[in-house]
Amino acid sequence: MLLAFETSAKAASVALFDGDKLLGESYQNTGLTHSQTLMLMAEDLLKNAGVTVADLTAVGVAAGPGSFTGVRIGVSAAKGLAWGREIPCYGVSTLEAMALGFGVHDGYILPTMDARRNQVYTALFSVEKGTFSRIFEDSAIALSELKEKLPGDKPIFLVGDGSKLTYNTLKEAVPNLILPPEHKMHQRAVGVGLAANKAISQGDAGDAAALVPNYLRLSQAERERLEKMK
Amino acid sequence: MLLAFETSAKAASVALFDGDKLLGESYQNTGLTHSQTLMLMAEDLLKNAGVTVADLTAVGVAAGPGSFTGVRIGVSAAKGLAWGREIPCYGVSTLEAMALGFGVHDGYILPTMDARRNQVYTALFSVEKGTFSRIFEDSAIALSELKEKLPGDKPIFLVGDGSKLTYNTLKEAVPNLILPPEHKMHQRAVGVGLAANKAISQGDAGDAAALVPNYLRLSQAERERLEKMK
Repeated sequence: MLLAFETSAKAASVALFDGDKLLGESYQNTGLTHSQTLMLMAEDLLKNAGVTVADLTAVGVAAGPGSFTGVRIGVSAAKGLAWGREIPCYGVSTLEAMALGFGVHDGYILPTMDARRNQVYTALFSVEKGTFSRIFEDSAIALSELKEKLPGDKPIFLVGDGSKLTYNTLKEAVPNLILPPEHKMHQRAVGVGLAANKAISQGDAGDAAALVPNYLRLSQAERERLEKMK
Repeated sequence: MLLAFETSAKAASVALFDGDKLLGESYQNTGLTHSQTLMLMAEDLLKNAGVTVADLTAVGVAAGPGSFTGVRIGVSAAKGLAWGREIPCYGVSTLEAMALGFGVHDGYILPTMDARRNQVYTALFSVEKGTFSRIFEDSAIALSELKEKLPGDKPIFLVGDGSKLTYNTLKEAVPNLILPPEHKMHQRAVGVGLAANKAISQGDAGDAAALVPNYLRLSQAERERLEKMK
């Protein structure tokens, strides 16, 4: 069984898979900090499913991009659990997990997270009759730059906390953008589990020790230190 | 805040809303009975969200169609909670809740649950650019009869535990049917909350005492009793 963590933004969630089958999921978006809630949610999810940590064979986690603090908490929890249980740990792209979880049948999926400083973390995926593929890589880019990269031939389904910002800024220039309903806007650990299962099926070893967060850019503290060193 | 219950099939879930905002959801599909799991999941959901039952202002529940035992457990729990807290209780159509939770942007949604005896519980909904409407009422009908009622002009998205049965039986006759991915196949309390919020916004009083399950047909025991009385 695989336990997946998603803490890359304001919402937090955990999901439990038995192979491809989703056994359970807990989600919350209450404003409580992930360090308060994540492990309690995971414990309760396992307890209510009649499962113990000894039943786990793998761990998955959204390893970024996303909130620095959020990603650190999720990755630390996942690595700690994997180390303690001596099981593999799969760090997946937060954006790919969002796209897989959203589950479009035909069209494009554009996960966006507000990266501040007039940028979004984003990537583009295409789904043709259920077959999923990546169009461009995870990046932190300005919406004005993103606009130039979006195709016009099919609906583009937004997902993520940057959805409203992206929609409101680009809807005239990109009329095929579609805003998700509120209850489908936020990332979920289900998507992380789907991405981790994909990595497992592709033969990824899931090396917990080698897993590091992928922030896509420097933290504010690091930027300021580099500025000073100049 | 509204707490929603969904126990109409094998999976069980609870969802917590603050107005339109989904604060949290717990879902499980482990084969454990709902009477074992439902209230534990609800308690843990509230606890992890930093909320108590005193914060609840309404209860929602999938009131059928569905498994007789499952619907009874959900409706009983919801009515008991609403009675105890003296707050309104909204019984919603399981099928409408499934369609609202699935969240298609454009096309038809066909929730189906296996009703045994070669029938499905089903209804049809249309979504045009996010605007949701019902095409036909909840009913228990044979797939051969359902086939004649399905439109061909847009994709029809299946949802529910009858999806595979319906897809495999009708895919040649109805080529616009689309099977959902496994992680989106089962009904969720999020949809129940969305349907209850809709009832609230339409001025429904949410009379807990008047709420009864809507099975759409007689139980096996009742059928046998009627047969004997003939």
